[in-house]
Amino acid sequence: MNRFDEWYEGQTGLTLGVQEVLFSEQSDYQRVEILQTDSWGKVLTLDGLVMLSEYDEFVYHEMLTHPSLCAHPNPERLCIIGGGDGGTLRECVKHDAVKSIDWVEIDEVVIEASKSHFPGLGVFDDPRTTLYIEDGIDFIARQSARYDIILIDGSDPIGPAEGLFEDHFIQACANALQPGGIVVSQSESPWVKKFHPNMKTLYNALSSHIGGVTPYLCSIPLYPTGTWSMMMASKTVDPKSSHAFDTAKAFCEMHPEISYFSAEGFRAATALPPFVSRLFT
Amino acid sequence: MNRFDEWYEGQTGLTLGVQEVLFSEQSDYQRVEILQTDSWGKVLTLDGLVMLSEYDEFVYHEMLTHPSLCAHPNPERLCIIGGGDGGTLRECVKHDAVKSIDWVEIDEVVIEASKSHFPGLGVFDDPRTTLYIEDGIDFIARQSARYDIILIDGSDPIGPAEGLFEDHFIQACANALQPGGIVVSQSESPWVKKFHPNMKTLYNALSSHIGGVTPYLCSIPLYPTGTWSMMMASKTVDPKSSHAFDTAKAFCEMHPEISYFSAEGFRAATALPPFVSRLFT
Repeated sequence: MNRFDEWYEGQTGLTLGVQEVLFSEQSDYQRVEILQTDSWGKVLTLDGLVMLSEYDEFVYHEMLTHPSLCAHPNPERLCIIGGGDGGTLRECVKHDAVKSIDWVEIDEVVIEASKSHFPGLGVFDDPRTTLYIEDGIDFIARQSARYDIILIDGSDPIGPAEGLFEDHFIQACANALQPGGIVVSQSESPWVKKFHPNMKTLYNALSSHIGGVTPYLCSIPLYPTGTWSMMMASKTVDPKSSHAFDTAKAFCEMHPEISYFSAEGFRAATALPPFVSRLFT
Repeated sequence: MNRFDEWYEGQTGLTLGVQEVLFSEQSDYQRVEILQTDSWGKVLTLDGLVMLSEYDEFVYHEMLTHPSLCAHPNPERLCIIGGGDGGTLRECVKHDAVKSIDWVEIDEVVIEASKSHFPGLGVFDDPRTTLYIEDGIDFIARQSARYDIILIDGSDPIGPAEGLFEDHFIQACANALQPGGIVVSQSESPWVKKFHPNMKTLYNALSSHIGGVTPYLCSIPLYPTGTWSMMMASKTVDPKSSHAFDTAKAFCEMHPEISYFSAEGFRAATALPPFVSRLFT
């Protein structure tokens, strides 16, 4: 059996047993690989960093999407930046209110590899979706007052996704939102010191250009340290409102396959331990 | 630099860069090692499994102790099973109500190594404490109606701590409790399938011999999968009562060094994701 190693803080790392490399290609942007592992099913890596495993991906995709989609009173127009594996789209299309989704992925190789190797994971053909193969930063810069929710499903702030944590991108997202719109972004592990500056930059950018920032946490075993953060920002929508809670409760009852997100669980996820709150002050 | 590897599910594992092995001894029970790592300070391992690092131990020790000590109306008499590093004791003695602590550790080598190498971490000399070097299972079997809180701070249910997850030990704990007493135990990661039977056994034993079981979760990056569970059980004390909440709030205000536990955070920790709740049903 081969080993996959990902180092995230000094020599600290995750190791996976690899039975077979199912796909490996250098795209224009990154090395894209799909590994058959011994304990987590198939795993997608980009530039040697785990993006998802079949067994734990539900946490990331449910928590990136449902909190905002349940909080917004009428989430009709969505934009997804990144998320080439289709998992974020899969969760979004469960919401009946959604009328259109602009999906912007920089790297077509990720989409094609995911379609071939994770056939049950992603959704790629929902008729409400328009796919744009281009840099999400350029795409968002051209939009104005268009989206109810923008979901930023990028990789770590090194390589092609670096700009997704920067002030001018978040300012462009703010400009691309409808009044009352929401931006959600993945925002790294609060335990990994090297990403603290990026987390702080993102938090400050969301605060100054949008306002109402709610960071929250979830458990993702194959991401560095096993705990991951996300941030939601909206000038007017309160993700902890009773509307959001009741909508989430009804939504989860209709979708018993949902295994991490819940109305109570999301509220709980926003109760940050003091050591995490201190990262933003 | 050397590497430390811990495997927890197939070939899935954690790797740490090791600058120096500070202590290594085979005790009567287990291999006890203290490693100087590159990113997490000193790390204590037992039989090759990480017990704590200097940088993340606060989570485990705060979450094992404060939820029950804040919930119990008058936690005078405590018993700690295990916890040879002294971290659990350090958190317990912050509570003024505590009058006596029976501390039962099977392996004196763990205590001596911790005293030498983690001088600031553990508390070993609080005058309220009586140390017993013996098997906690034998010790508890001799007690009756004695403790307000029993804290089970054992290692994984393989090796010397295996019995701490079993029905007859929990039954003995129930017998050792004062009326209205509480038992708290660490209970492994909900992501690691091989320990699901032990978690279920522990949950069922706590339910049948004590009642009122509250499982809760916390983030511990150097434990397998980064998410850890604990369980609290009491026939009469509700850890989510307003008394518990208000006591926790006041306690944390008096102890600004507390970095993970909080009144809101503990309530949040009890909101289990559906995939975790399903482990117990």
